[in-house]
Amino acid sequence: MTISDPAGDDADVHAAIHEATYRALCRHGYHQTTIQQIADEFEKSKSLLYYHYEDKGELLTDFLRHLLDELAERLTVEGADPYDDLLILVDRLVPVPMDEEAVQFRRVLLEIRAAASHDERHRELVRRSDGLIRSAFADVIRRGAETGRFDPAVDPDEAAEFVHTALLGTMIRGVTLDDPETVARTRRTLERYVDRYLLVE
Amino acid sequence: MTISDPAGDDADVHAAIHEATYRALCRHGYHQTTIQQIADEFEKSKSLLYYHYEDKGELLTDFLRHLLDELAERLTVEGADPYDDLLILVDRLVPVPMDEEAVQFRRVLLEIRAAASHDERHRELVRRSDGLIRSAFADVIRRGAETGRFDPAVDPDEAAEFVHTALLGTMIRGVTLDDPETVARTRRTLERYVDRYLLVE
Repeated sequence: MTISDPAGDDADVHAAIHEATYRALCRHGYHQTTIQQIADEFEKSKSLLYYHYEDKGELLTDFLRHLLDELAERLTVEGADPYDDLLILVDRLVPVPMDEEAVQFRRVLLEIRAAASHDERHRELVRRSDGLIRSAFADVIRRGAETGRFDPAVDPDEAAEFVHTALLGTMIRGVTLDDPETVARTRRTLERYVDRYLLVE
Repeated sequence: MTISDPAGDDADVHAAIHEATYRALCRHGYHQTTIQQIADEFEKSKSLLYYHYEDKGELLTDFLRHLLDELAERLTVEGADPYDDLLILVDRLVPVPMDEEAVQFRRVLLEIRAAASHDERHRELVRRSDGLIRSAFADVIRRGAETGRFDPAVDPDEAAEFVHTALLGTMIRGVTLDDPETVARTRRTLERYVDRYLLVE
């Protein structure tokens, strides 16, 4: 990539800004993070950051859009067994065990979600993120029902919504209580639900 | 109640302060609410409020303790049918439909939960609140298993944890997306889980 490739260069700058935003959010939390703290994490020239974004709101909106793209990639599973794929999705969204950085970042996501109720732009991004997760689960459950791996009487969209809701509850309980054992136990309960309710033995 | 009954008088003052705190939190949200805004909602002398609490943190901790007492009362159900009791509990925690004030207050609860990860005192209160809810559900599911209303193969503590987690996820999705239809739909899915997974037909 050269200076004569402005589009590529721009992508590089954005990637570096997203990295800096991620680090600042993990370190300070959503409410305490200022654009100055993001600039402090940014290795390139700070003026570059201010050149690209007018304020913290604009920068965070762009960061959330970037997370949404990443999420779409992380939700791509095309294994041989829909049951395994479902558990892979669960594991990618709420891994067990979760390292401290993963816990911190999920705390930030929860703060963003709580704050999104006051901010229509962020709410729309949360809504799209929920939609992506739900349709990934629905696809895998539908595939499982078609191949006879899952109970065909189960409605894929309904089951997907329930798995997503339970997963959100699991994440929230674990990261707010700072209790990895709660995450592990609640995730096992979710897996048992999948085994007993969806799986054809 | 007379001036010679200081204990009773104190209880009155605290009740009025809790009311003012509730109103200020619903109006401004957890992060924006200042002790001045709580004082503005307080009908008695503002100096009385500052006399009782040193800062916002102390006041909010006391308010959360008060909520915990209220929660314990709201979780008392002793009807004839454990299945009905379980649905009553669900309804008291996440009512459908939810009026605007109920949505606002649950948004505040979510903000408190997100913030509790940085505050050990509040985290302990969130932990106790979760414990109360879980044991209320476990009691009713245990009663249902004993009376043959629920599947005796289901572990009451595990099912209670799952219902609680799903309920938390339901509340969070509904109030952050400001979408009553999501709350209603997810709660129906939770009820179907209870019907299919717990209930003996």
